[in-house]
Amino acid sequence: MGFIYYALPGAEELAENLARRADAKVGRLEVRHFPDGEIYVRAHTLCAGHRAVLVADLARPDHTVLALIFAADLLHDLGAEDIGLVAPYLAYMRQDKRFREGEAVTSASFAKLVSTALDWMVTVDPHLHRRKSLSEIYSIPASALHAAPVIGEWMAHNVPDALLVGPDGESEQWVKAVAEVADMPFIVLRKVRHGDRDVEVSVPQADQWHDRTPVLVDDIISTARTMIETVFHLKNAGMKPPICIGVHAIFAGDGYEALKNRGVRIVTCNAVPHPTNAIDLTGLIASGIQTLLSTKQGVL
Amino acid sequence: MGFIYYALPGAEELAENLARRADAKVGRLEVRHFPDGEIYVRAHTLCAGHRAVLVADLARPDHTVLALIFAADLLHDLGAEDIGLVAPYLAYMRQDKRFREGEAVTSASFAKLVSTALDWMVTVDPHLHRRKSLSEIYSIPASALHAAPVIGEWMAHNVPDALLVGPDGESEQWVKAVAEVADMPFIVLRKVRHGDRDVEVSVPQADQWHDRTPVLVDDIISTARTMIETVFHLKNAGMKPPICIGVHAIFAGDGYEALKNRGVRIVTCNAVPHPTNAIDLTGLIASGIQTLLSTKQGVL
Repeated sequence: MGFIYYALPGAEELAENLARRADAKVGRLEVRHFPDGEIYVRAHTLCAGHRAVLVADLARPDHTVLALIFAADLLHDLGAEDIGLVAPYLAYMRQDKRFREGEAVTSASFAKLVSTALDWMVTVDPHLHRRKSLSEIYSIPASALHAAPVIGEWMAHNVPDALLVGPDGESEQWVKAVAEVADMPFIVLRKVRHGDRDVEVSVPQADQWHDRTPVLVDDIISTARTMIETVFHLKNAGMKPPICIGVHAIFAGDGYEALKNRGVRIVTCNAVPHPTNAIDLTGLIASGIQTLLSTKQGVL
Repeated sequence: MGFIYYALPGAEELAENLARRADAKVGRLEVRHFPDGEIYVRAHTLCAGHRAVLVADLARPDHTVLALIFAADLLHDLGAEDIGLVAPYLAYMRQDKRFREGEAVTSASFAKLVSTALDWMVTVDPHLHRRKSLSEIYSIPASALHAAPVIGEWMAHNVPDALLVGPDGESEQWVKAVAEVADMPFIVLRKVRHGDRDVEVSVPQADQWHDRTPVLVDDIISTARTMIETVFHLKNAGMKPPICIGVHAIFAGDGYEALKNRGVRIVTCNAVPHPTNAIDLTGLIASGIQTLLSTKQGVL
């Protein structure tokens, strides 16, 4: 009973690299659209009696979620012992509460869909804001891995003169974790309120860090507005041009172009395939899978 | 405990017309995309203690299925007594068997998704080819209504000199049903095989029907290749330019333009919103809902 790794479109490279590390087989999964827009799925590698792993890039969920559910149903039908999901970026984590009357809490609906179709899940830095743990909404064993150590190591090798910068108080914990691994200093920008509409953002002890390369780190870079604003404040404070690091290169709308035009270097993890990918999470995910499956919960 | 009809994007007109006939309320449902491509759903009309009906155009399922599931979950959360689906076109009915090893039978997966999220369903002429009844895959009460009587009536009023034409033996039953309601003659084209690759299509008794307007009827017009071929054979046999009628105006790829360029008149039912819609199914669907809900199965 071995493992077979299947990729949904876009996740082929990660699936191959994960399979290689696990000494497992790569299965071929064909996913395409019929002329009328319906999805066609076919497993060219059969999996009866094997454990299947679906590797998916969920960054554009309209185009992948149905394919994922169909693929999971198919592998069950074909006799897989169990089916795991490796989704380095976990979609639908942001609408995690009814902010206004009548709103759908899609994070719960989405979790129910995934929990019904699959048997276990591994993801990286899901947007856990109001929820403490994936188990509040996911009813299958689900691991949330942290990219901070991998980012910290990348920085130690590639930006030895880094100063980590958190755009606001909310980011402090996250920036601190990376700084500890990289053994580097960090600062967090402070908002000073002078009146209802008069908010000043200050860069603490800016003079002290003029010789350092500021490095902004965030979990998701989507419209990139927070990063762009932070870049502006750092420039105003006379700092060097910063490096912007994101775990999840979502880049909605013109986010990528807008950030690039600020003259910064953009570096992302390969959780979501993107030209800026430079930090490899394969090792982190591979050992995360192993850990989950070796715990009591994850064993068949 | 009244009914509230909500429309998914594209089904607003049908939802309003169905609500008016049922003397029910129309609820406002907001469905849009966040910049990152995730779906946002909000019910501006609350439904606690009411019965909800979701009206959906499933012709482009990648863009509607997730929204439908989220909306159904939402209405349940908000306290709806039960939630019905009115989907005049039922997507994912064509991949109803494993034609080749390893293929996903998406009709069953899709039925499971819908049956989990909703409590009952009404649709029109679903593509039941290998399956006899929706109940083989849908576990909720599901009505499959037939557009043939409505099409027959439309023809009796609008094409009194019609000759109904079935493109092949498979269509005979369907064409016969319409012909009976309209009290009109019908023919079915015959394939005569002269050899492996030499297939002749003949129009039976073509001479007899030269003064009639040929009317082609099919359940789904998608790529329109079958219709285009049939139009070609009718022209070869010296018949008048035909009228092409479809229940479901799917029109994949260049299907619509290609068929229109053959100089035919295209008429469709309003199961899928399209400029060619001319046959109104509102009455059929309204009474179908009433019938389903008045049977034991459909009552709360």
